Amino acid sequence: MEILFELLRSRGISGDESETKNLILNYIHKRKDAWKVCPDIFSGDELQDCIILKFGKPRTAVFAHIDTIGFMTRYQNQLVAVGGPDFGDSTIVVGEDSLGSIKCTVREVDGNLEHDFPRKTDIGTCLSYYQDIRIDEEFIQAAYLDNRLGVYNCLKLAENLENGWIVFSTYEEHGGGSVPFLLKFIQSNSPIRQALVSDITWITEGVSHHEGVVISVRDRNIPRRSFINKVIGLARESGIPFQLEVEGSGGSDGREIQNSEYAIDWCFIGAAEDNVHSPNEKVSLKDLDSMLKMYQYLMAKL
Amino acid sequence: MEILFELLRSRGISGDESETKNLILNYIHKRKDAWKVCPDIFSGDELQDCIILKFGKPRTAVFAHIDTIGFMTRYQNQLVAVGGPDFGDSTIVVGEDSLGSIKCTVREVDGNLEHDFPRKTDIGTCLSYYQDIRIDEEFIQAAYLDNRLGVYNCLKLAENLENGWIVFSTYEEHGGGSVPFLLKFIQSNSPIRQALVSDITWITEGVSHHEGVVISVRDRNIPRRSFINKVIGLARESGIPFQLEVEGSGGSDGREIQNSEYAIDWCFIGAAEDNVHSPNEKVSLKDLDSMLKMYQYLMAKL
Amino acid sequence: MEILFELLRSRGISGDESETKNLILNYIHKRKDAWKVCPDIFSGDELQDCIILKFGKPRTAVFAHIDTIGFMTRYQNQLVAVGGPDFGDSTIVVGEDSLGSIKCTVREVDGNLEHDFPRKTDIGTCLSYYQDIRIDEEFIQAAYLDNRLGVYNCLKLAENLENGWIVFSTYEEHGGGSVPFLLKFIQSNSPIRQALVSDITWITEGVSHHEGVVISVRDRNIPRRSFINKVIGLARESGIPFQLEVEGSGGSDGREIQNSEYAIDWCFIGAAEDNVHSPNEKVSLKDLDSMLKMYQYLMAKL
Repeated sequence: MEILFELLRSRGISGDESETKNLILNYIHKRKDAWKVCPDIFSGDELQDCIILKFGKPRTAVFAHIDTIGFMTRYQNQLVAVGGPDFGDSTIVVGEDSLGSIKCTVREVDGNLEHDFPRKTDIGTCLSYYQDIRIDEEFIQAAYLDNRLGVYNCLKLAENLENGWIVFSTYEEHGGGSVPFLLKFIQSNSPIRQALVSDITWITEGVSHHEGVVISVRDRNIPRRSFINKVIGLARESGIPFQLEVEGSGGSDGREIQNSEYAIDWCFIGAAEDNVHSPNEKVSLKDLDSMLKMYQYLMAKL
Repeated sequence: MEILFELLRSRGISGDESETKNLILNYIHKRKDAWKVCPDIFSGDELQDCIILKFGKPRTAVFAHIDTIGFMTRYQNQLVAVGGPDFGDSTIVVGEDSLGSIKCTVREVDGNLEHDFPRKTDIGTCLSYYQDIRIDEEFIQAAYLDNRLGVYNCLKLAENLENGWIVFSTYEEHGGGSVPFLLKFIQSNSPIRQALVSDITWITEGVSHHEGVVISVRDRNIPRRSFINKVIGLARESGIPFQLEVEGSGGSDGREIQNSEYAIDWCFIGAAEDNVHSPNEKVSLKDLDSMLKMYQYLMAKL
Repeated sequence: MEILFELLRSRGISGDESETKNLILNYIHKRKDAWKVCPDIFSGDELQDCIILKFGKPRTAVFAHIDTIGFMTRYQNQLVAVGGPDFGDSTIVVGEDSLGSIKCTVREVDGNLEHDFPRKTDIGTCLSYYQDIRIDEEFIQAAYLDNRLGVYNCLKLAENLENGWIVFSTYEEHGGGSVPFLLKFIQSNSPIRQALVSDITWITEGVSHHEGVVISVRDRNIPRRSFINKVIGLARESGIPFQLEVEGSGGSDGREIQNSEYAIDWCFIGAAEDNVHSPNEKVSLKDLDSMLKMYQYLMAKL
């Protein structure tokens, strides 16, 4: 799990994912020769800060976004949100500008976000939650489990994957923007008609810790039912614990797959967390385990 | 009008359009040899649950969405809306899950949707309005006139169409998603620069029953004025009754045509209804008649 | 500055840009032979009311939208907004329908827009702010500086541009729709990976008159940080006055570049104005001057 800890400690708020990109790319280059199939690796300016891996002859693509929510400094001590951070009273954030390291507290005053760093920061400095990783026998708790766990799931999946695309996307937390060009790339290289979204969802009145990975029937977007039914059928066959989710809100890279120029069915599959978009996101280790197993099973069978 | 009744009775809420797709496809295969021009028919997994017909050498495409609004079961007796259903007090809905048929009542309690079916349903079961078709000399009233009438219009148009695309799309009631790949398909096969949206609009203070089909100058989206003027000019020439609409909200497949990668002008043309998105949608038969005639006229002249 | 005055006086609300298109196109044809590089000019129905200029071998594209906000008549004396007009009490608007010229007052009554023209107008008639251009030594004030100044900037840039695309887009004030097909055109002709958005932004607590052109780190959309840093680095080198902006709302053609099928970095650069979307938009001439200079510098260096 060392790479998971490194991912959790790396900063990569939407639009500023290069540090996280480099971490993932270095890991891939170090490990790929030990994987069952050594993938083709696509990265570089023509893919911005995204990475694409091609294993064998793909039938399905897995998407995991590598960006996180956070904050950006404005004028004086104002902050603007990146994505939808959700925190209690005051919360510690960290970052760096041309004058050095920043560590301070963010709070909401009359609906506006403010920080209390004593000096003026560079306009547009990105600030992330201070990271505090907590693990016990049942749970992992940290900032940014969404979507460091989804990325981790893809890196574990890569070890034994024979056929498939693994796609590391950017901007997901703040309106998206990379999935359209990523899809164009994979569809012109080796087209597929199925996609899975490796991301983290919510504990709700119908989704509990320890009950298995969540297969989402819908969120704000509704994927095609016949594909969802196919995925659920295979999940039943697998014997791996899973739960079904039906939500009216929330989104993922699935939204951009749905709205793309390609007829690609998609399904969101991921562990559920408490304390969404806070520094204290909390996921059951058992659910993470069934997420890892479910992706391996589905990518072989779909 | 038998096919219209069958369409009204078939279920096809957004994402789950396969039953409706099959009904339309079977009808086309049975009838096509009696049509003036026998079209090329495109369907299958590469178009999800959409169908495309190509007649002769197309200059214009007509889009009709085959999905409807409805409900999806969540946990316990909760429901989540599909599209924007709008109903009064309690309303009868029907569906089917792994244990059998479902017929129950839906109502809104403190802003949440609930059903009263006595047993637990499968999570994610689709429920539609109970269908009750009423016709007299002046009106047709039923659930889902939006957009079963738009589909019916296309099937009648097909009988005499010489040149044009007819496109049956999905997902329209819930954020769209099929029009981009449908456009990519037709533009790479036989490109066009004009589109008509065969759909149903609203009775308002400026749009009345029996005054003719509605040509929409705009809804939330604004199509290019020069094309709208061209359509209105031809409509005037035709002698067929029509009304103009100017709205600030509402959308259609036109939105996705507008935002696509292709420079395609579009215009929404359809009869207006009362009691939108309720089980009691109501359309003037005279307006339906002018809708059928207007499409035949415009597709020959545009 | 004569062409700027002509632009300010021409009408071109979103969807109805043909008058403005023709004005720009005529200007280009009259002037192009005096420019350092005579560009390839693309226009016509396949680009709707947009215009594309290609200079030399482009590395970067500049986008300027040619549409403006305004109003459209509905039934009786109702109006529907085009884009987001923002005016005080009653405001004079002008237009034309089949019966002749229209000049009247628009006001908001209980959240609804009304005009007071004494006769019935054609349904769907476009109305624009009455134009009153005011210039002194410090400021230009008029309706529609947004985005007549952005267009003017492009026409001045064209005089000395050696390599680059200049793209005049439509619909920007009302949801967009032309940028996707414009991008498809330029990417299939001579692809680029960098774009600048030549548009007008807002005076705020962090952005003042006379302090230079604004380089936007973000608005509602967040462009890729590494590109913004590159632009800011060059801007520093240039010695031309500029300010940085960080906003949580607002959008531009950049939104559609971000969401396109192409991995193109973008940055919004433009002078700031007071009284946004009113008949009294106000821009510092010094800021306009630094906008013109900054584009010339950046297009040579990027």
